[in-house]
Amino acid sequence: MLNSKYHTQAPTSKMSSEQNQTTTIPIENFKYSKRVVLKSILSRGDKGLGLVGQRVVVGGWVKSKREKKMKKDQGSKVGSFEVGDETRSNVGCCEAILARIRMLRSVGRLILGRDGEVERKEEDHRPCVVLLKINDGSCVDNLQVVIDSSMSLLSEVMSTGTSILVEGVLEQPLIQGKHKIELKAEKIIHVGVVDLKKYPLAKTRISLESLKAYSHLRPRTTTVASITRIRNTLTYATHTFFHNNGFIYVHMPVITTTDIGASSNMFQVTTLLNKTEDATNLNPTNDRENLSLEVIKSSIKEKSNNIEELKRSESNREVLLAALLDLQKANELALQIEGKQSESKINKTELNHVKDFFSRPAYLSVSAGLYLESYACALSSVYTFGPIFRAEKSQSMKQLAEMWMVEVELAFAELEDAMNCAEDFLKFIIYAVLNDCSDDMKFIAKRIDKDCIDRIQSIGSNAFARITYTEAVELLNKVTEKTFQQNIEWGINLSEEHESYLADEVYKQPVIIYDYPKEVKPFYVHVKEDGKTCSAFDIIAPRVGVLVRGSQKEENIDKISTRVGELGLPREQYDWYLDIRRHGTVKHSGFSVGFENVVMFVTGLDDIKDTIPFPRSYVSASI
Amino acid sequence: MLNSKYHTQAPTSKMSSEQNQTTTIPIENFKYSKRVVLKSILSRGDKGLGLVGQRVVVGGWVKSKREKKMKKDQGSKVGSFEVGDETRSNVGCCEAILARIRMLRSVGRLILGRDGEVERKEEDHRPCVVLLKINDGSCVDNLQVVIDSSMSLLSEVMSTGTSILVEGVLEQPLIQGKHKIELKAEKIIHVGVVDLKKYPLAKTRISLESLKAYSHLRPRTTTVASITRIRNTLTYATHTFFHNNGFIYVHMPVITTTDIGASSNMFQVTTLLNKTEDATNLNPTNDRENLSLEVIKSSIKEKSNNIEELKRSESNREVLLAALLDLQKANELALQIEGKQSESKINKTELNHVKDFFSRPAYLSVSAGLYLESYACALSSVYTFGPIFRAEKSQSMKQLAEMWMVEVELAFAELEDAMNCAEDFLKFIIYAVLNDCSDDMKFIAKRIDKDCIDRIQSIGSNAFARITYTEAVELLNKVTEKTFQQNIEWGINLSEEHESYLADEVYKQPVIIYDYPKEVKPFYVHVKEDGKTCSAFDIIAPRVGVLVRGSQKEENIDKISTRVGELGLPREQYDWYLDIRRHGTVKHSGFSVGFENVVMFVTGLDDIKDTIPFPRSYVSASI
Repeated sequence: MLNSKYHTQAPTSKMSSEQNQTTTIPIENFKYSKRVVLKSILSRGDKGLGLVGQRVVVGGWVKSKREKKMKKDQGSKVGSFEVGDETRSNVGCCEAILARIRMLRSVGRLILGRDGEVERKEEDHRPCVVLLKINDGSCVDNLQVVIDSSMSLLSEVMSTGTSILVEGVLEQPLIQGKHKIELKAEKIIHVGVVDLKKYPLAKTRISLESLKAYSHLRPRTTTVASITRIRNTLTYATHTFFHNNGFIYVHMPVITTTDIGASSNMFQVTTLLNKTEDATNLNPTNDRENLSLEVIKSSIKEKSNNIEELKRSESNREVLLAALLDLQKANELALQIEGKQSESKINKTELNHVKDFFSRPAYLSVSAGLYLESYACALSSVYTFGPIFRAEKSQSMKQLAEMWMVEVELAFAELEDAMNCAEDFLKFIIYAVLNDCSDDMKFIAKRIDKDCIDRIQSIGSNAFARITYTEAVELLNKVTEKTFQQNIEWGINLSEEHESYLADEVYKQPVIIYDYPKEVKPFYVHVKEDGKTCSAFDIIAPRVGVLVRGSQKEENIDKISTRVGELGLPREQYDWYLDIRRHGTVKHSGFSVGFENVVMFVTGLDDIKDTIPFPRSYVSASI
Repeated sequence: MLNSKYHTQAPTSKMSSEQNQTTTIPIENFKYSKRVVLKSILSRGDKGLGLVGQRVVVGGWVKSKREKKMKKDQGSKVGSFEVGDETRSNVGCCEAILARIRMLRSVGRLILGRDGEVERKEEDHRPCVVLLKINDGSCVDNLQVVIDSSMSLLSEVMSTGTSILVEGVLEQPLIQGKHKIELKAEKIIHVGVVDLKKYPLAKTRISLESLKAYSHLRPRTTTVASITRIRNTLTYATHTFFHNNGFIYVHMPVITTTDIGASSNMFQVTTLLNKTEDATNLNPTNDRENLSLEVIKSSIKEKSNNIEELKRSESNREVLLAALLDLQKANELALQIEGKQSESKINKTELNHVKDFFSRPAYLSVSAGLYLESYACALSSVYTFGPIFRAEKSQSMKQLAEMWMVEVELAFAELEDAMNCAEDFLKFIIYAVLNDCSDDMKFIAKRIDKDCIDRIQSIGSNAFARITYTEAVELLNKVTEKTFQQNIEWGINLSEEHESYLADEVYKQPVIIYDYPKEVKPFYVHVKEDGKTCSAFDIIAPRVGVLVRGSQKEENIDKISTRVGELGLPREQYDWYLDIRRHGTVKHSGFSVGFENVVMFVTGLDDIKDTIPFPRSYVSASI
C-alpha cells in the first residue's frame, strides 16, 4: 500500500527534489517582524555564504560607514571599486563634509529629477558607494550594506546610530575580508536619523564611564550589548538547569513585613509620603497634648482680648498688670508645650503605620531564603530568581542597591548535596556561555579581559577545590610570601584578602570552603556535633570573591528556637519560620548566588554598574 | 576498522545485553538528595510497574493514613490483609486513639526488647499494617508506603503532615487499586513529627480561605502545590518561548526615580524612616524662620528675666507694665511663627530627599515598558519578566500590590507583529501546561474548575478572534438580550462587563480588540493616520478579562513630543525617553502580560491571593 502510494506521487516528489537541487531554501523572515534577523545570516556555520543571491530585508543601526570611489568605467555597478581609494567616516572632518555635499547633491538630483548647474560642474567626479556596517543587536557581527551613491535617502544614513530598514540581495564581497557576505541595497525602506549635536555615541570608541548619563543608549554599544546577551544566556541556562533537575520555580515576594533584624540595611516601602495622602499620616504629637495646647491657646486669646479691653477702657493699671502677668504665665506654658512637641516631631518622626498601605512597616526583601524554606518543606526542590535589595552605602562599587539573586533550597538534603548542586549549577551556566556566546566572549576577551575565555573554560573542566574553614585558616597561617592586612585566626571570618589569596593565588579556580565557626554564620545554620562549627559553605571565585553562600539549615525545633533566643531575634516575627521545624521537619539545605557576581566572574568586568539598565535607580553612589 | 572494533568488543556487549534482559536498570537517586523523587516512580508511563522489586529510599510528608488488620494466620507478612477491615485516620476519634495505643505498645515492645504484662494481655489482637500515603511535592500522586506494625518509630509517623524518609522495596499491591505500585517499608530513616495541637492542616479537607494566617504551610496542600507547579511550567515555558524566538531577557530595575505621572499609585522607597537615621531627615521648616524664632525666643527669655527682676525690686509699676506689654507682643509673634511652622509641618511633611538613599524620591516600578523600549531600540527583540507594583486599594481581590509581569518589545515591528507574537506566546505556554502538568490540571478540574482543561485545550486549537474597537462597539450596541450597567458609545473605554460579554458570551475564547480611540490609551501609543484611533490592542480572555495589553509605539519625535506636551507630563523626566526617537528611531511594538491573570485563566481560580507565597506582603486588603 505504502509503496503504491509513493508511486502515485512520484512525479511530484521528483519535481520538488529537482527544485531542491537547483535553488536554496529561502531564508525566512523573523516571525514577528518583516525582516531577517542578522544573526540568522551571520552566525551560520558558513558565515552566510550559502545565502548568496537571496533577496532579504534587514534592519539595524549604523555602527560605522566607509565610502569607496568606483573606477570610472564601471559606472554604478556596485561591488567593484578601487582598493584603497576609500574614505572612512572618521578619517578627517573636511573630507567627510565634502563627501556629504556630494551625497546631498546626488539625492537632490534624484528627488528633483533634474540635473542642476552645480551638479553638471561636478559630473567628472567618479560616483562612489557607501559601505555601512549595521547591527541589530542579535549578534556581535555587523552586516556590511553596500549603497550606491545614486540611491535616495543616502545622505540620511551616513551617521553612526542611524536606524535603517533596507531591502537588497546578499552577495559575496569582491574583496574577501573578514566578512563572507554583504548586502547590495536596492531599496531603503526606512531611515531613523540621528540628532548629531545631541548624540553621545557618535564617536567610535567611547568609555562606558562617559555614558553614565545615557544609560538608555548604552545597549547600543557592542560591549553592553554583548554583556546583555551573555547575561541572557546565563539566565536561561539557570532556568534550564533547575528545570532539568526537577526544581520548581517560586516567585517570591519582594515586599516583606518581616524585619529580618537588619532594618537599617533595608529599604522601607510606604505610601505615607505620597503627595495625595492626607496630613494625618504623620502623627508625631499625642492627642492629649494637642488638646491642652488648644485650651491654653484659646485662653490666651481670651486673655489678650481682655487686656486690649482693659487698655482701651483706661481702667485700673493694677488690674491690667495682673491680667498681663496672668497672660505671661499662659504664654510661657504654651511655648513650653509647643517646644516639646516640635522637639518630638523632629527627633522622633514616628509614622502612623496604621494608615500605611500594609498597615505596618514594610520593607524590600534582602533575601527570599527563609520564605523559600517553607516551599522546600512542601515541594522538596525549589528555587527562586528575582531581585533583592540592600540599602548599604557600600565603599565597594561592586555592591548594588538592587541585585538579582538565585536562591535554591532542597529538602531531604545535607550540606554536601547543596555543595554538589551549587558546583554543578555554576558549571552548567558557564558552559552555556561558552557554547552559545562564543562570539560575545571573543569580543569581551578583546575589550575587557583577555583571560575570560581561559578562565571559564578551566572552570568547566575541573572539580572545584574543597577545604574546610579550619584547613583554610591553617593554610593562610603558613603563608610567608605575603602579609595580610588582617591576621587570621580560628573563629574570625575570612576577609576579602584571604578569600582572594585562596582563589586567585593558591587554587586559581573556585574554592568551596565549608564547616565555618558557628559564630560567623546566621542563626538558621545547622550546628555540627562538635558544637563549634556549622554546616555552611561559601564558594570563592578568582577575581570576584564570594559567588555562592550556602548551608544546611537547622531542622531541630529546640535547637533553632534556642538560637533565636540567644541572638535576641524578635520571636513573634519568626514563629512562622519555627513552624517549619515544628511540623514535619526534614533536613534541608540550600544556597544563594548573586547573579551580578556571576556576570562579573564570566566577563571579567570590574564594575557592573555601567552595563546594566538604568543604574541611577540601582547604585548607592551618587550619580 | 569500525567493524573490527565492534568484533573485539562483542563478548562484553553480549554480556551486558544479557544483563539487561534479566535485570531492570536500577532507578537512580535524585542527584542532590539520597532518595528517589516520587515523580520518577509515579509519573512513568507504566505508573511505576516496571520498578517492582527495586530497593529505594523515598521521602515525603504523610497526606493520609489507613490501618489494616491482617488475617490471623498471616503473621507479619505485609501485603495480605482482610479487605474492608481497615481504620482510616479520620473515621472516628476513639478508634484512632485505640489504634494509637496499640501502636505505642508495639513500639515500646521493640524498644524495650521485652514483652511486658500489658502487651501479653492484648496478644490475641491481630497485628496490623499501616498504609501511609506520602507526597514529596514533585507530582500530584502519592506513594503508598506499607509499614508493619512491628516497626519502630511507627507511632510517630501516624499523623498527617509528618515527614518521613524511608527505605524499602517497591511492590505491586495485592489488591490493585488506583495505584500500580507501593513501597514495603523496611527501615524508617528519619521522622519529623507534627505538633498536632498547633498544626492547621491536620484535617483532610481545608479551605484555602482558612489558611490565610498559615501561608508558610499552604504549599503542603495539594491545591497550592499543583498551582505552584503549573505556575512553574508557565514560567519556564515563557522563557523557552522567547529564547526559541531569539529574544533577549533583560533584568529591569524595580526601583525607579521616574514618577510616571501616577505617583499616587506608586509605593515610595526610602531610607528616611529607618530608626537609625538621624533626625534631620525631616526638614519641614525653613532655616530663616527657624533663625528668627530663635532670636525672638531668646529675647523673650531676656524680657521675662527682666520682668522677674522688676517684680522682685518692687520698682515702678508703669515700667513693669510697659515691659509686660512689650513681652506680650514678643510672645504673640513667637506663637504666630510657631503656629505657621507647625501647620506647614503637618500639612506638607516635606521630606528632605537629599538625605534619602538615592538623593531624590524613588518608587517601585509599575511597569518596565518604557525602559524596555530603550533596549528594543538597540537589541531589537527583548523581554523582561519581573515584579511590578501598584499601591491601589482595589475593590477587586484580583488586584495584588505586587505582581509578576511579562513585558515584550520588538523593534522593526508593527501592531500586527505584536498581536501575532502575543497570541503565539499565550498558546505556547498554555500548551506547555497541557503537556507537562496533565495530572495537576486533572486535579484542578476536580477541585476548582471542571472546565479548565476544555478551556485551555480550545485556546490552543483556534486562532483568537480579532476585531477593531469600532466593531466591538457596534456589536455591543446591537446586543438586546442583555442590558449593560454602563452604555457603550464610541470614544469611551470598554468596561469589564463589555469585555466579559465579548469573551465569555460572544466568542467564548480570547478576543483581540485593536485600534482604540487614542484618548483611552497612553501617550506613547502610535496614533493612526485618521488622527482618532491608535495602534493599541488588548487580549480579553473568558473569566479573567484583560490578559494582554499591547501597542505600536509612536516612533516620530515630533508627534510623541507633542503628546507629552498635550498631556502635561513632566518633560524633563521624559527626555531620555524622547532620545529613543531623536536618535535612530524605528517602528517598535510590544505588549505586557499580567502573569497572575494567566495563572487564573489556566486554573480557573477566582482569586489568586490564597495560593501565592506570603500574601500578607502582597495584598492590599487587610489580613
